[in-house]
Amino acid sequence: MFKINENYLKLPGSYLFSTIAKKVSAYSAANPDKEIIRLGIGDVTLPLAPVVIDSLHNAVDEMGKAETFHGYAPDLGYEFLRNAIVEHDYKKRGADISADEIFVSDGAKSDSGNIGDIFSVDNKIAVCDPVYPVYVDTNAMAGRTGDYIPEQQKWSNVIYMPCTAETNFAPELPKETPDIIYLCFPNNPTGSTITKDELQRWVDYANKVGAVIIYDAAYEAYISEENVPHTIYECEGARTCAIELRSFSKNAGFTGTRCGYTVIPKELERDGHNIYATWYRRQATKFNGVSWPVQCAAAAVFSEEGQKQIKENISYYQENARIIASALDELGIYYTGGKNSPYIWLKCPNNMGSWEFFDLLLNEANVVGTPGEGFGENGAGYFRLTSFGDRENTIEAVERIKKVLANLSK
Amino acid sequence: MFKINENYLKLPGSYLFSTIAKKVSAYSAANPDKEIIRLGIGDVTLPLAPVVIDSLHNAVDEMGKAETFHGYAPDLGYEFLRNAIVEHDYKKRGADISADEIFVSDGAKSDSGNIGDIFSVDNKIAVCDPVYPVYVDTNAMAGRTGDYIPEQQKWSNVIYMPCTAETNFAPELPKETPDIIYLCFPNNPTGSTITKDELQRWVDYANKVGAVIIYDAAYEAYISEENVPHTIYECEGARTCAIELRSFSKNAGFTGTRCGYTVIPKELERDGHNIYATWYRRQATKFNGVSWPVQCAAAAVFSEEGQKQIKENISYYQENARIIASALDELGIYYTGGKNSPYIWLKCPNNMGSWEFFDLLLNEANVVGTPGEGFGENGAGYFRLTSFGDRENTIEAVERIKKVLANLSK
Repeated sequence: MFKINENYLKLPGSYLFSTIAKKVSAYSAANPDKEIIRLGIGDVTLPLAPVVIDSLHNAVDEMGKAETFHGYAPDLGYEFLRNAIVEHDYKKRGADISADEIFVSDGAKSDSGNIGDIFSVDNKIAVCDPVYPVYVDTNAMAGRTGDYIPEQQKWSNVIYMPCTAETNFAPELPKETPDIIYLCFPNNPTGSTITKDELQRWVDYANKVGAVIIYDAAYEAYISEENVPHTIYECEGARTCAIELRSFSKNAGFTGTRCGYTVIPKELERDGHNIYATWYRRQATKFNGVSWPVQCAAAAVFSEEGQKQIKENISYYQENARIIASALDELGIYYTGGKNSPYIWLKCPNNMGSWEFFDLLLNEANVVGTPGEGFGENGAGYFRLTSFGDRENTIEAVERIKKVLANLSK
Repeated sequence: MFKINENYLKLPGSYLFSTIAKKVSAYSAANPDKEIIRLGIGDVTLPLAPVVIDSLHNAVDEMGKAETFHGYAPDLGYEFLRNAIVEHDYKKRGADISADEIFVSDGAKSDSGNIGDIFSVDNKIAVCDPVYPVYVDTNAMAGRTGDYIPEQQKWSNVIYMPCTAETNFAPELPKETPDIIYLCFPNNPTGSTITKDELQRWVDYANKVGAVIIYDAAYEAYISEENVPHTIYECEGARTCAIELRSFSKNAGFTGTRCGYTVIPKELERDGHNIYATWYRRQATKFNGVSWPVQCAAAAVFSEEGQKQIKENISYYQENARIIASALDELGIYYTGGKNSPYIWLKCPNNMGSWEFFDLLLNEANVVGTPGEGFGENGAGYFRLTSFGDRENTIEAVERIKKVLANLSK
């Protein structure tokens, strides 16, 4: 008689963003006349850049002719794309990564979940609190996190690294030694960053204790300040302890196009077993590559024109962040992020709970954000807004939020 | 100190098709003047159908304008695609499947690997021998298959169901009761099929013993005979015991475009736990959907014009199969498949081993096929050829094979 994976039964409630989607659908259905503005999930709104569109059209034409048709892609992804990634994302940053250490994928969410496959269930993970729920949920599904303790909203066998206003929303080295450390900078959800020296301390620590760092750099393109590392491989020694996850979703608007990549240096090993070879085997067996048009489109992002065009889009979102931030300044609401990140992490006014604030904004302002609590205990009382909306909607959302909060203080 | 997933270390050699690719690359590098014809992996060669190309162009244009841009897709996939799937692939076959039981994905390979996530490690699987290696390898990675026994090329904790010439390459109900049964019809690699009555016996058996059937119907479009089921849901009772995997790769040439889907009926449950909800949670957490253009393209396959166009392509490949089959007839070589399947499964002449025959064809005929041994013990001495080549190459390959075999018998 077949048995279900019991680890799934331990998972609390549903995936954060599904819950939000359901709440929004229910509100919409009950109030069909209301125009809802979504500053919740990190989904982009600007269209794909013209060079990306041209490249897609061109690749689609190729798929329509026998001479230029493409079937299954090579295991790692097409070399021209991996070369462009190395050139632009690593060499330019002084990071030593070769094209055959790049694994092109359908996105960083899949990779950040799947990467756990290649590690033993008997590894203890450390995550920031608050944290992008996928890291924890996928480890829970694999049976790596112990039991869920509802009162604490925590798992019994996970090392939580508190990220609070006191620490500038950066984690400190944990007291208990982890095996796998998840770091995401610029951070989702808080928008915080750490300096290269600070990241170097994590790399040194991982090498010392024999931990692996899974470094999610999906928001790298939003870094605007100096001395904030764009890749973990800027740090010395990262090749023996770090895996990096990257995405085209946030820099080039690929949320509905699907492309990302994972970097595993060949020196990363344990007891003579090569992690690179293990992931290679996983991907060759459980994945079948990214479509030809999408790989062509991703490569177009790295052309001179492509870089110019995506930078315009990023600037647009950065200006949205500035608009939200300046409204919060005006309202006297504490926040962080927005500077090197598309996310703004704000303290809910009047000591409201974050789901309470979510409901208030949904019902009164028809604005959707993400309750900080959904990201962990330290997210309680916080709220995430994204700058990925369009300009008009962002301005309108800010005006509505101002009005609701003005009424609140009356 | 982090630990690797030790199950990966038990895996023998590399993934079959990676090994073949390496052998072919090595030969090509040493013989750059030789023109190699690939009838090995199941990759298609005909370009995408005109309606699919039109649909891709149209969707790409939409991605280039803010008003019609699409970001993250809904968890299950777009409703218009799922409705088209239900209408065409199920309702027309008299099968009761609803649109919200369809999970659109990046392909059947990912799904057939990932589906194991939702089942306990403590389940015993039954597979055909020979078998598509992904079913076994992914279960081995999950720790479900015991230890590998090199002498037997088998795993200690897997129920192998022999498929031989004596059984028309169909499995018989296993003596030992399995928890998870993998079936693939029309079969990869043997091209065999079973009748609806025979499949009904499997469904009844699974319901009786409480097993789940993972039914891979990726080659359904090649069925040309009556009384061969197109979906397992044509059988009574399949809604309580079967998961079906489908692909656009082989019917519409999407190997390099990437789209497939998995069907999980809501009645499939164990101890009150719903398998549908478990897979939903898995996909919402570890996957982020298929791109807008590709979902539009998949939907175009179901239009009237789309159906006409893909049927032309399928006929083309069927004619290739006929050409290969008639050459084998001429040579007096035993084979099966080709009639309801793009694969032809032949007995290597002169009692050659299947890797020996592989090397012979590669070196002497410059034709790449797949050694039957790569699919399991009962594949030894057999060889798979696909009809997915182009016409000219298929004819040329057949001529070269004839010449090599003529020399051999001299």
